[in-house]
Amino acid sequence: MKKTIISFILCLFFPILLWAQTIQSPNGNLKLEFEVKEGIPYYQMAFKNKAVILPSKLGLELKNQPSFLDGFEIGEVVYNEFDGTWEPVWGEEKHIRNHYQEMKVELIQPATERKLIVRFRLFNDGLGFRYEFPAQLNLAHFIVKEEKTQFAMAGDHTAFWIAGDYDTQEYDYTESKLSEIRGLMEEAITGNISQTSFSPTGVQTALMMKTNDGLYINLHEAALINYSTMHLNLDDSKMIFESWLTPDAIGDKGYLQAPGQSPWRTVIVSHDARDILASRITYNLNEPSKIEDTSWIRPIKYIGVWWEMITGKSTWHYTDDFAAVDLNTTDYSKATPNGKHGATTENVKRYIDFAAEHGFDGVLVEGWNIGWEDWFGNFKDYVFDFLTPYPDFDLEGVKDYAKSKGVAMIMHHETSASVRNYERHLDRAYQFMKDNGYHSVKSGYVGYILPIGENHYSQWIVNHYQHALEKAADYQIMVNAHEAVRPTGLGRTWPNLVANESARGTEYQAFGGSKPNHVTVLPFTRLIGGPMDYTPGIFEMDISKLNPENDSWVNSTLANQLALYVTMYSPLQMAADLPEHYERFMDAFQFIKDVAVDWDQTWYLEAEPGAYLSIARKAKGKNEWFVGNVNGNESRTSTIKFDFLESGKQYIATIYADAKDAHYRKNPQAYTIRKVILDNKSKLSQLSAPGGGYAISIIEADKADTKGLKRLR
Amino acid sequence: MKKTIISFILCLFFPILLWAQTIQSPNGNLKLEFEVKEGIPYYQMAFKNKAVILPSKLGLELKNQPSFLDGFEIGEVVYNEFDGTWEPVWGEEKHIRNHYQEMKVELIQPATERKLIVRFRLFNDGLGFRYEFPAQLNLAHFIVKEEKTQFAMAGDHTAFWIAGDYDTQEYDYTESKLSEIRGLMEEAITGNISQTSFSPTGVQTALMMKTNDGLYINLHEAALINYSTMHLNLDDSKMIFESWLTPDAIGDKGYLQAPGQSPWRTVIVSHDARDILASRITYNLNEPSKIEDTSWIRPIKYIGVWWEMITGKSTWHYTDDFAAVDLNTTDYSKATPNGKHGATTENVKRYIDFAAEHGFDGVLVEGWNIGWEDWFGNFKDYVFDFLTPYPDFDLEGVKDYAKSKGVAMIMHHETSASVRNYERHLDRAYQFMKDNGYHSVKSGYVGYILPIGENHYSQWIVNHYQHALEKAADYQIMVNAHEAVRPTGLGRTWPNLVANESARGTEYQAFGGSKPNHVTVLPFTRLIGGPMDYTPGIFEMDISKLNPENDSWVNSTLANQLALYVTMYSPLQMAADLPEHYERFMDAFQFIKDVAVDWDQTWYLEAEPGAYLSIARKAKGKNEWFVGNVNGNESRTSTIKFDFLESGKQYIATIYADAKDAHYRKNPQAYTIRKVILDNKSKLSQLSAPGGGYAISIIEADKADTKGLKRLR
Repeated sequence: MKKTIISFILCLFFPILLWAQTIQSPNGNLKLEFEVKEGIPYYQMAFKNKAVILPSKLGLELKNQPSFLDGFEIGEVVYNEFDGTWEPVWGEEKHIRNHYQEMKVELIQPATERKLIVRFRLFNDGLGFRYEFPAQLNLAHFIVKEEKTQFAMAGDHTAFWIAGDYDTQEYDYTESKLSEIRGLMEEAITGNISQTSFSPTGVQTALMMKTNDGLYINLHEAALINYSTMHLNLDDSKMIFESWLTPDAIGDKGYLQAPGQSPWRTVIVSHDARDILASRITYNLNEPSKIEDTSWIRPIKYIGVWWEMITGKSTWHYTDDFAAVDLNTTDYSKATPNGKHGATTENVKRYIDFAAEHGFDGVLVEGWNIGWEDWFGNFKDYVFDFLTPYPDFDLEGVKDYAKSKGVAMIMHHETSASVRNYERHLDRAYQFMKDNGYHSVKSGYVGYILPIGENHYSQWIVNHYQHALEKAADYQIMVNAHEAVRPTGLGRTWPNLVANESARGTEYQAFGGSKPNHVTVLPFTRLIGGPMDYTPGIFEMDISKLNPENDSWVNSTLANQLALYVTMYSPLQMAADLPEHYERFMDAFQFIKDVAVDWDQTWYLEAEPGAYLSIARKAKGKNEWFVGNVNGNESRTSTIKFDFLESGKQYIATIYADAKDAHYRKNPQAYTIRKVILDNKSKLSQLSAPGGGYAISIIEADKADTKGLKRLR
Repeated sequence: MKKTIISFILCLFFPILLWAQTIQSPNGNLKLEFEVKEGIPYYQMAFKNKAVILPSKLGLELKNQPSFLDGFEIGEVVYNEFDGTWEPVWGEEKHIRNHYQEMKVELIQPATERKLIVRFRLFNDGLGFRYEFPAQLNLAHFIVKEEKTQFAMAGDHTAFWIAGDYDTQEYDYTESKLSEIRGLMEEAITGNISQTSFSPTGVQTALMMKTNDGLYINLHEAALINYSTMHLNLDDSKMIFESWLTPDAIGDKGYLQAPGQSPWRTVIVSHDARDILASRITYNLNEPSKIEDTSWIRPIKYIGVWWEMITGKSTWHYTDDFAAVDLNTTDYSKATPNGKHGATTENVKRYIDFAAEHGFDGVLVEGWNIGWEDWFGNFKDYVFDFLTPYPDFDLEGVKDYAKSKGVAMIMHHETSASVRNYERHLDRAYQFMKDNGYHSVKSGYVGYILPIGENHYSQWIVNHYQHALEKAADYQIMVNAHEAVRPTGLGRTWPNLVANESARGTEYQAFGGSKPNHVTVLPFTRLIGGPMDYTPGIFEMDISKLNPENDSWVNSTLANQLALYVTMYSPLQMAADLPEHYERFMDAFQFIKDVAVDWDQTWYLEAEPGAYLSIARKAKGKNEWFVGNVNGNESRTSTIKFDFLESGKQYIATIYADAKDAHYRKNPQAYTIRKVILDNKSKLSQLSAPGGGYAISIIEADKADTKGLKRLR
């Protein structure tokens, strides 16, 4: 499968050799060209002869030494083809093909006698490229002042963007022309517990765009390890994005050493938005799993003591007695319970009962451990010990009870962004988990990073998330990190990273609400890098019913909430609402009980970012299919075919859809459930409400009673 | 022993109540007065009616909330006397008396409904005071923008100062008038691998001063825990020092929470410089030992593979092959040894043999572990693993060899100031020490702190040293931390902190030399906070004899080097020179072999900072006495009495003194050794050369042959 051509470019004889370095994608649709002009390296890319990336500069500005920006000559160029298939531990499909043409360009800077390599991998669905710093005499340790990678756009595209920020990704997406970003930036920066924006045209990746002539372009990065997270800053006079790395406390952007490399910069492109969702470039550019025995990594469907705190119905903290807590001295045994603590033994047992009754794998409990009375906003170093339960949480008893019910407990480690404190406790905390039968942890990084000056996405903190992840693997613990850096396909290399938050999750529906079309954007942006613990499944949209002081509203229909279990891929799926709310809608809840969390195959049936998407998936190792449709701000009739099913067979589908008068704000709980017979020739036209959607579960017909059911033609 | 008087000051009736709050030292020599004038708290202090501290403001500037600077009224004032004695685990004397008058002043800020307490403890030899932040409704977590404690001097005193700096203490002292500091600052800031000065009149503590009328004043701090290190900034128009805390990356100076407190600010004062050396205020203001079983903490006399690297005769690193090392991938097994590596098995065994032969307790080996090829200056996170020896260092073999010879190995942990990396490895590294029979560690923090933005003396990093120290106690490991924060008497609370560097040590004699009178200043400054691993005992002053490329000179006579074992108190004393150098001067080396490292009692015989000092000590539990005299820049005849010896007994003293023509630069190795008989009526007049001194060992005469010895009258 490998083909290597080495061409030595003789610059002396061909001093102006325009676009001599070229590769095409395996299917020929994409063309990538590279040149060095007046010493400056450029690349450009076209899709079926339409410009995707106009000539764009490559290079890095270094500190205290000559930069890698100009003065280059081309050295050795190595071409290579790779075609292989690998099996992810969990995922949207059982097999992933990794097929690309590679061009490795050596750049020589004669004045400094240094070398820089740019490695391009061109797939059918896009491009990945990275900088490599080979071991060499004149380059050992170096400091990146800025990476100066350009992505020159060919027009004033429509973009789905959130503000560039060193400390949060939890923004609603804005849909606008690139030229409109500057004017909309202020409005786009909504409040957050930690936030540090940097430029009126700075945006985050994954950035989703659509050109006027119908090309979909996605910019992101893959394999972010020991490097600072990339943002994009737009020169809106020229429509050129340039990389903008996350700085440390003194503004430096990376401490590297040769041999080494940058993460991959990715450009996914297609004329069909569904191909963006289907792209596996991000995973393919990551290394294979470093965990040999992955048998302990298992997808999980879970519930948890969480939404009641998020809405303000109950509290993480146990008492109102303390203005401040000192974990070494504060005596909880004499404190007065505030009567609203969520993580009480009794309440947790109620969740365990519910989980056991309805077949959930796990129960998350937040607020179980001491320290929540002053847990954020105080730059408090020793904020949690990750070991000591509140007096009203009988950890041993709960452990035994859960075990007796066949339910796994899910650990919660809020770090309050005090990362040193977390690292100091990591071994003990993980060992404590093992000793008490917890196999997975939801970690959190709320608030500004300690030590002050570091940011959530700077190299030093990126290295912390990686450290916590790798150490978790040593303890066979699965990690679901919230407020950590957005994923970049690392779940391939470390499949115990089963999910991240790293975007505006469902919690914001209790913090004032998210845009109704938010979930039609996320799969094109946040999910490009890996699974999100979006925590769907909210059935009660009126938050004031949980907490009279909270007038937030969940901008979604109930059917939309069901569809999210299919459209928001994650091997870790929460049913986030309260048991008592599910008990009011047991017929709809059935879908959440039935839906799989791991998949043999996925079909992207319809997709338009910001507007709608419909996805069908086959459960891993089972003849069960699930379809999800989520809809944007306007009502729309979705039309899908079932040709992904095997021909010649009959199936029974249960369709959970918006009622005709459903509306995310006015009538969110109006849904219909109907059963139909279908085969692989069937089509469905289904109305989805504003902020609505539908969910379908499909089983083979011979396994169930088809009597009286209508056939879907 | 305790007497408590509570007086409620009724501010309403006595709105202008000047200096109503007063205490005197137990002997009445010191008077401390406190008042609140126009809402601002002031204190002043006098020694026998001479002003030591003129009226000086107290308070703290807070961030994002009203400050603790003004608007105060006096609340409850509590007076207390304490007199007790405690036994240090190691020290200059067996018993330490802790005797003070205390005044605890509650300050009420009506506008904010907050309270601040200032607690004063007045000893016979000086003052300690601190801020206390009691638990209260309107104060929980808070950020210190600056502590604004003033020390208003009564004149333009002579000071022995080093430049205020957030990242190094390794400066030569400048002796000047306070008014001259500004003009001398630039010259005073000599080069260092890490340094961050902050003000043209900023100096470090302990600051030693002498007034025109002969008062000696020393300013320092005690019990620096979870707080930022204090410097002093001089307003040289008014001769007022103000506290200047070490900032974090964004300039904040402390993250505190109530209840809590600042370290103690200390003012030691006397008309006799010897009382400054004899003061135990710094220890007395620290808490008693938190280590219950201290039997494993033992004073150590040691040698080590160290000076040969310091001088450049050999290297810490093993090979010159690598421009940069990656501990995960660099293959040392194929590297070419550079032939100069110090920590080879063979060389280390030579040191072990020498230690065993001459009765040393331990051997330190630096450069034993991989990573030294690029160990500093590169902001390298994973710089050492503290576990993996170089290919030419047989750790197991050396361990067994040392054990067979009855010598303890001393571990070396250079962190390169990558503190997170050290913390990540701490448990494994300490366990590795235990497994391999190492009971003490010399740790190092060379270079700028990682993460960038933090400083060697900021709160966050102070907390790291404390963490490493407390964890070491868990493993029963003694710590000797270099480049860490200067000690503040913490050795009382954590007696496993057996020494620190935290000043310009002997190594600088190989880096260009220190001032000849340096060692006559250190006991008045650096040693006020605790023992220093000064690493004395250099016999070969011409460094070019060790390394032709190094023309540095040790500015000291050989006799001065011997005296340092007495004058520079430490329970950890190194004989720093090479075995082959000691072998050339075995008669002088006998003193280093004989001298004790722990003491029953100490007598300060003569003292003048910058000029000379003579100290006598009795070995702990033994009838052996040792005297040390170190001399400044000019030759001088020291005159001492032996009245510290028991009357009616005869003693034999061996006097190691400068020869008549000795001189630190011109003739440093000219010494004489003579034995005399003496009793407690004897006097000695002994010439000490510039940069010279003498050392005396004394034993009871009936235990040795006195025949032919002259009697000292």
